[in-house]
Formats: sequence, structure tokens, C-alpha cells
Amino acid sequence: MPELSTRITGLNEGGADGWEIHARARALRTAGAPVTDLTIGEHDTPTDGLILDAMNDAARAGLTGYAPGPGMPELREAVAARVSARTGVATARDNVLIVPGGQAGLFAAHMALCDPGDISLHVDPYYATYPGTIRAVGARPRAVATRAEDGFLPTRAALDAAAHGARTLLVNTPNNPTGAVYPRATLDDIAAVAAAHDLWVISDEVYDTQIWEGTHLSPRALPGMAARTLVIGSMSKGHAMTGSRIGWVVGPDDAIARLRELATVTTYGVPGFIQEAARAALRAGTDLEARIAEPFRRRRALAIRHLTARDIGVLPAQGAMYLMLDIRATGRSGLSFAHELLERHAIAVMPGESFGSAAAGHVRVALTVDDDALADALDALAGFAAGLARAA
Amino acid sequence: MPELSTRITGLNEGGADGWEIHARARALRTAGAPVTDLTIGEHDTPTDGLILDAMNDAARAGLTGYAPGPGMPELREAVAARVSARTGVATARDNVLIVPGGQAGLFAAHMALCDPGDISLHVDPYYATYPGTIRAVGARPRAVATRAEDGFLPTRAALDAAAHGARTLLVNTPNNPTGAVYPRATLDDIAAVAAAHDLWVISDEVYDTQIWEGTHLSPRALPGMAARTLVIGSMSKGHAMTGSRIGWVVGPDDAIARLRELATVTTYGVPGFIQEAARAALRAGTDLEARIAEPFRRRRALAIRHLTARDIGVLPAQGAMYLMLDIRATGRSGLSFAHELLERHAIAVMPGESFGSAAAGHVRVALTVDDDALADALDALAGFAAGLARAA
Repeated sequence: MPELSTRITGLNEGGADGWEIHARARALRTAGAPVTDLTIGEHDTPTDGLILDAMNDAARAGLTGYAPGPGMPELREAVAARVSARTGVATARDNVLIVPGGQAGLFAAHMALCDPGDISLHVDPYYATYPGTIRAVGARPRAVATRAEDGFLPTRAALDAAAHGARTLLVNTPNNPTGAVYPRATLDDIAAVAAAHDLWVISDEVYDTQIWEGTHLSPRALPGMAARTLVIGSMSKGHAMTGSRIGWVVGPDDAIARLRELATVTTYGVPGFIQEAARAALRAGTDLEARIAEPFRRRRALAIRHLTARDIGVLPAQGAMYLMLDIRATGRSGLSFAHELLERHAIAVMPGESFGSAAAGHVRVALTVDDDALADALDALAGFAAGLARAA
Repeated sequence: MPELSTRITGLNEGGADGWEIHARARALRTAGAPVTDLTIGEHDTPTDGLILDAMNDAARAGLTGYAPGPGMPELREAVAARVSARTGVATARDNVLIVPGGQAGLFAAHMALCDPGDISLHVDPYYATYPGTIRAVGARPRAVATRAEDGFLPTRAALDAAAHGARTLLVNTPNNPTGAVYPRATLDDIAAVAAAHDLWVISDEVYDTQIWEGTHLSPRALPGMAARTLVIGSMSKGHAMTGSRIGWVVGPDDAIARLRELATVTTYGVPGFIQEAARAALRAGTDLEARIAEPFRRRRALAIRHLTARDIGVLPAQGAMYLMLDIRATGRSGLSFAHELLERHAIAVMPGESFGSAAAGHVRVALTVDDDALADALDALAGFAAGLARAA
């Protein structure tokens, strides 16, 4: 076999990164073991019937040929209207490209903005694919460190220190894994640093329907930012459509026109019947979104109640479908804590280290099992942590 | 707006490339004009009901969450079995990655094999996305010229001359736009040149169910080639699933393992319900494929009958859903012939120049309208060409 590209062989840094816990939990469950899997951000309910009806109806009506490259006009307009209404930024069809999922949007955005060798910033902790996405386009990832003590919000100083020579800054609010919803002051810092260093901001807002405290603000809505921001949105989390692979990129029309050319050579569009499914889901409006968000709102409250006054630190997520727990009092790394918890108590959580160095000594709990199972798992987890902390 | 990447601004070479004819035909039809559109390779029938049933059943059964990154095991095995049976090359699940369409497969293959600055070969004439696909990964496209007089087959001399310093060679048999089905001698040349220059071969075989003369041979089946070939396959053309965006890459398991990592950061998989639809289509076997291929087989024969003895050169396609016509006797370029034909006779065909310089002076006719409409359009086209030729 001749050599592969250095791009692809260098995509992952290699070695254990904690995702083996997710894989092991899946394998144990497949083998019939009663593992409580709190590793992954996926709803415990399937996609709603009204959405599947729309998909089937569209396919039966013959919408099975090539769809327009940038997305169907009706869906682009529906997304534009949604973005305009929620952010106050005038957004039209030509500001929207439909893509096969949020990850495809993240990749396309970095392809459009970064040349090989460019420096691309992302905030640490981060969603697990970010560094690989940046490396895939030939750019160099540079992390903006945050601290648990600051609620994992990037500070102006940290942003400034990292921004020199960078091309892009990837931010994510509401945040996976930390649950932070960036306040206006943080967004002001991001906008100021982006302007000072002529950065593009890539804003991953796929959790924008899951807000438990505060208000979701898009960086694109800040003064001057619409011209230097690409927003990544998705139907996955807000509409329980993870498996449908549909999302969008919103940005300046010139950038979207170029991204449309890129789509021709990377994906060649998104199935028309899935676009019609997405349109039906958006038509269902905030009622559907609230219904899909409700279990996570409820379980977050439940989890905080269960863990408060136990020997474990809880970061009260302001958004998204996870909770970060500070287990530093146990003397364990997040990684070894997660491994031991799985082996001894059949509970799978993600080590903070899987999301970067800033979240070391933490674990991420996905609120994606029913309330009783979640309560039982958290009781066991807290008891396990308390035992370790006493022995530490 | 800060600058975009030079990668994306340089994706297309700019200027008219003939695809404006396709766009204009679409616009005229949308406005109600009776245009016969022979520009694009899409069936005039929707996806079969048995396939849509399988999709709907899978979605209703709850297969709406994240599917496994490299594809569902059952579909990977079905593709592996199909490839093994048709090519004689032992192919297992780990040799198969499921991707969202053939174009995504072409892009992923070049990402996996080419670093920025590498030279990537493709044969001219070529499917329109090839040069942009190569540029998107930062590589430099280099065309291997062919001649109409050689049936648009690449010669050993042309391959050898182009191969120096190259990393990959992209071939396509059955060929779009020429209809050539590469004979064993051409594949022997490709294999010899690949071995001599340590090239990877990327083999686009998406028309492998549409063979009118000869036999489809995969370059991967030649001695020593399985270790240096990535095959791109798709459900689009063979199963009338263009809008479903599902295909595969087949290759050495080490390369597929890396491509799986790439998929995590580019697409994050393919909808499970579409994978089940594809599996149902493959289960339907060669009967379904023959039924979908039949109209093109019939229309090809009809077209050749209609055009023989007219003042126009017909290249009798051995495969795929197009026919190339040599209109050099008219004194027109393919581009100006196609523009005039659309304006005067409301018939849209693709100029050969849209597929590279080797096909200049030709037009490509897609056999994608019903037989009567095709016959009428070809009669008008031939009459128009004869008039021009007499005046030339």
C-alpha cells in the first residue's frame, strides 16, 4: 500500500482519549450487561412521528432526485426566518447553506476560512471533534484555556494571548461539555478580540434550544460581527434528529456562495425528503422544541438536587444536555475515575480529559436516561466519589 | 468580511463552463417553457417503492439516532459481498466505508491520499466535479488527455507522460461523459503505470450496473492493485437513489480505518434509515438493477438508430446513461452549438467543453427523457447540425 496523506494519518493524536469508555459501555450493553450509559449526547426518544410523516410523504411524492446544491429554497428561507427572529440579525435565503449535519457544517466552515498552516483557535474544554476538524483542513489547532473557577468561560486575557496570528476562533454556546451559556460580557470580549485580530468566528450553536438559565446570545448578533461570523446550526439536538444528518451554516452571502461551491465537491447536497422533514419540524415551532428539551431540563434539576450536599462538585449547567462533575476531591483523574466507575458500578460517564486539559479532574454526565435510572446512577456515583475522597 | 481561504476562492477556475446551459434549461422549464432537458444524469423515475418502504419502516422502528460512523455492519457486509461477487476480489466489512454519496467518497479518497501541493491525475474528458474535488484537498489537478479517435481511452504513453511526480490517478469506468467501458488492455496500462510510479488509483465505478457492450472490470481486480486502489461506489445511478446520498469507498482495511476517522470530522455518518433503504435495494439484486438500467439501454439503441446516417458523429457508448455526439462538422464549438440549440430548438445538452478540453467539439446527451421525446429531440438536433454543417 502506498502512503496515505499526512493529513489523515495525523488526524488524531493517538492513544487512549477516554472514548474507549463509550465504546466499552456499548459493547457491555450489547453483550447484555446492565450498564447505565451516560456517555453520549443522544435523546432517549426517537425522532417525532410528525417529522417522519413529512419525510415519508415527501419521498412518496417523488422528492427522491438531486436536491438543489445549497438546499431547498423553502428550507433555506425557514432557517433564515428562524435565525432572524431569534437573533434580530436580518438573515435571508442567501445567508443559509443546508449541510448534512452540524459536523459537516463545522468542517465546511473551517475549509472555507483556513488554509494549510493557518492557526485555528478553539476554547478548551471542547467538543471532541474540534481539534480533528481543524487538522483535517490542514490548519493548526490552538486551544484557549479556561478554568473551572471561571465557569469555563474564556477570559479576555486568554483570548488575546491566543489570538496572535490566528485566522479563526471556534466557540460553542450553549457549551458541550460544560453547559456554560456565554453571557454578554464574554461575547463582547470575543467580538473585541475578533475585530482586533481580524478573526473569523465560527459559532457552534447546536444546543440553542436547551437553555436552563440565562439567554442564548449568538456572537453574530453583536455589532460588526455578522460580517465575520459563520454560525453552525443543526436539527440534531433541538429536534431529536441526530440520525437525520441535517444542519446549516449561516453567514455573509459571499461566504455562503463559496460554501455552495465547496458543497458541490464534498457532499453534493442533502436528501430532499430529509429537508422536508426538517421543514416540518421547524414549522412545529417552539412547542416541539420545548417538548424535546423538557426531559433534560427536568433531569438537570433532579441531578443537581441529588448531588447537592454530596461530596462532589456540581457545575450547574445553564444549557445543553450534560452536567459536569468536579471529582478532584477523589484524588483521581477523570479518566481513571470513569474507568473505575464503569468496572465497579456499571455506570459509564465521559472523563473530562476527553474534552481537553481544562476539564481534567471532571466527568461529564449525559442526562440521557430516564429519571429513575439517572437518580440511581448519580447516587451510586456520588457514593463512589465520597468513598474515594475519604480514602484520598 | 475577513478573507476566505485561498482553497475555497480557487475552487473553480471561474467563467462560463457550460453548466449555465443546465441552469438556464431548469429556469426555462420552471417558467413553463417546453424545454427538453438532456443535461443531467438523473433518472426520469423516482426511487422505487420497495426502497422507500424500507426507509420508512426503519425510521418508524426507531432507527433515527446516530448510526455507526463507518456504516451499519449489515450494509458494509452487503456491499462487501456484492464487490466480492462482482470483482472476484475478497472484500470484507473492514474494506468498506459507507459515505453520503459518491461525491463524498471521491472527496474523502483524495483527502486520504493527497497532501497539499501533491499532483493528482484525472482522465480528460472527466465528470465535472473532478478538478474541483482535487483542488478542494489542496492538491493540483493534472489531466491525462485522451482523443475521440481512441474512444477517449487513456493510452499508456499519455499515462506515463503524466504520472511523473503524481500521487493519485482518478479513473472512471463506465465513463461519464464518454460512455467508454475500459477494456482489459487499458486497465493493464493503468496498473502498470500505477505500479511504476507508486500511484494510488481512485476508481469511480458508479455506473457499474449500466453496461451495454463489453464487461465492467474494476482496476482493483488486477494483480497487485487491491493494495493501491480505492473504489468509489454509489446507489445513485444503479438504483435510482440520486437524492438519497449514499455510497461507499472500498479499499485496504488500513486506509478504510483512517477514512473512518476522517468521516468523524467531516460527515459523522449516514442516516441509518437510508442505510436500511440501500440494503433493501441491494437485496433486490440484479433484477432491480436491470429494471432501472433498461430505459437507458433501450434509448441508447434508439438514439444510435436515429442518428446513424445523419450528418453527425455518434460515439456508441458502451455504458452509462449518456451519448457523446461529435459536432465538429458544424464548425461550432460544443459550447456555442449547445447555446444555439437551446435558444432555437428548446433542447438542452451539455457542451463537451464542460468535461475538459479533450471533448471539445462534442456535446453530451443524457438519455433521461422518455423515448418519444428523446427521438424528437435527436431528430431536431441532427437537423440543426446538418444545416450548420452545410453552411460551414
